[in-house]
Amino acid sequence: MPHLKHDRIPRATISRLAIYVQELEGMEQQGVKVVSSEKLANACGVNPSQIRKDLAYFGEFGVRGVGYYVFELKEAIKQSLGLDKTWNVVLVGVGNLGRALLRHGVLRKRGFIIVGAFDCDPFKIGEEIAGLEVICSSKLPAKTNELYVEIGIITTPPERAQRAANYLLEAGIKGIVNFAPARINAPSNVSVEYVDFIHNLFSVAFNITQNQAKGLI
Amino acid sequence: MPHLKHDRIPRATISRLAIYVQELEGMEQQGVKVVSSEKLANACGVNPSQIRKDLAYFGEFGVRGVGYYVFELKEAIKQSLGLDKTWNVVLVGVGNLGRALLRHGVLRKRGFIIVGAFDCDPFKIGEEIAGLEVICSSKLPAKTNELYVEIGIITTPPERAQRAANYLLEAGIKGIVNFAPARINAPSNVSVEYVDFIHNLFSVAFNITQNQAKGLI
Repeated sequence: MPHLKHDRIPRATISRLAIYVQELEGMEQQGVKVVSSEKLANACGVNPSQIRKDLAYFGEFGVRGVGYYVFELKEAIKQSLGLDKTWNVVLVGVGNLGRALLRHGVLRKRGFIIVGAFDCDPFKIGEEIAGLEVICSSKLPAKTNELYVEIGIITTPPERAQRAANYLLEAGIKGIVNFAPARINAPSNVSVEYVDFIHNLFSVAFNITQNQAKGLI
Repeated sequence: MPHLKHDRIPRATISRLAIYVQELEGMEQQGVKVVSSEKLANACGVNPSQIRKDLAYFGEFGVRGVGYYVFELKEAIKQSLGLDKTWNVVLVGVGNLGRALLRHGVLRKRGFIIVGAFDCDPFKIGEEIAGLEVICSSKLPAKTNELYVEIGIITTPPERAQRAANYLLEAGIKGIVNFAPARINAPSNVSVEYVDFIHNLFSVAFNITQNQAKGLI
């Protein structure tokens, strides 16, 4: 991993780095070798100074008057984000959203391999989804010890999120992405991320309300 | 709408306000009438001063030595966020994720009613999902004029996101929540939100990598 110049990198920077990787990969596929900071910024929907600031956390990139070398920059960011490897993931909660994620090609494409699907509903246990057999959640700690799993995804209803988290913690998971609209408790050395797209709908509703009040729409 | 003391409210504040609403609703259901700022902060996973700061954008809340009145605070936040009404929503892209959202009860529960589902795949057109018949995307502008739709959700593959956005814009939509991992272009008075849970997986991967480097796990 490259030497980090700062210990703590803002979350927004990590989100943008992920966008940079996506755009750089797209450029690489189109055979682009070098990109100006203006072009990269434009593709990513940010301004060039933001990109320079974000990359400064990781070292010196870009050549004055030339721009960025697409492959090198992409590899450096991926290495910094820990994306130069694949991550084994288990998913708890095989409802509509869980099924969608199990079948969603983008996770695998980005290096996150779902190796186990768990649910406590006896009607779901044994069902096969995207090549995985649904296993009883209580077997999660024993099962994940067999595999090398570092990340857990929770897609249970909110009232079952903490129980799912407890199984994951018992299994020694190091990071959790929680799609259930509920806070979960975990030790401080376990990274927890919340995905709550209702917040995005709230934001849009709020912005529309504001735009209407201002007479912009 | 309450008078806003500031024109521009940070996105993170809006996200937290959404969490406050959720927790306040839970308390209300449990018959809680008044909550201390410490208890509310604890339930929401923030510190009390953060709550005070966030609420200060909207006015004066809380009574010294008492705390917050659960119902009143919840209603005030909902009104500020534009959540004191329901919002009609259309969804474009009936893949795994689109189907999951159509069937996901949480959207309706939070006041976002999906009134139309669109896809350009002839094999999907006419299919019924969660009580909605899938309609050809090209008919979106005509169809949404019949309904009172303000928000569009995009769940297409990335390469079709802009086309979906164009249909929504043509239909006069005022806000878009884009789940496709692609930037979209829209006029500045149209609010666009991106939901990209891959970023959350990236963040967890990054944090695990960092924690490992520090010897914390």
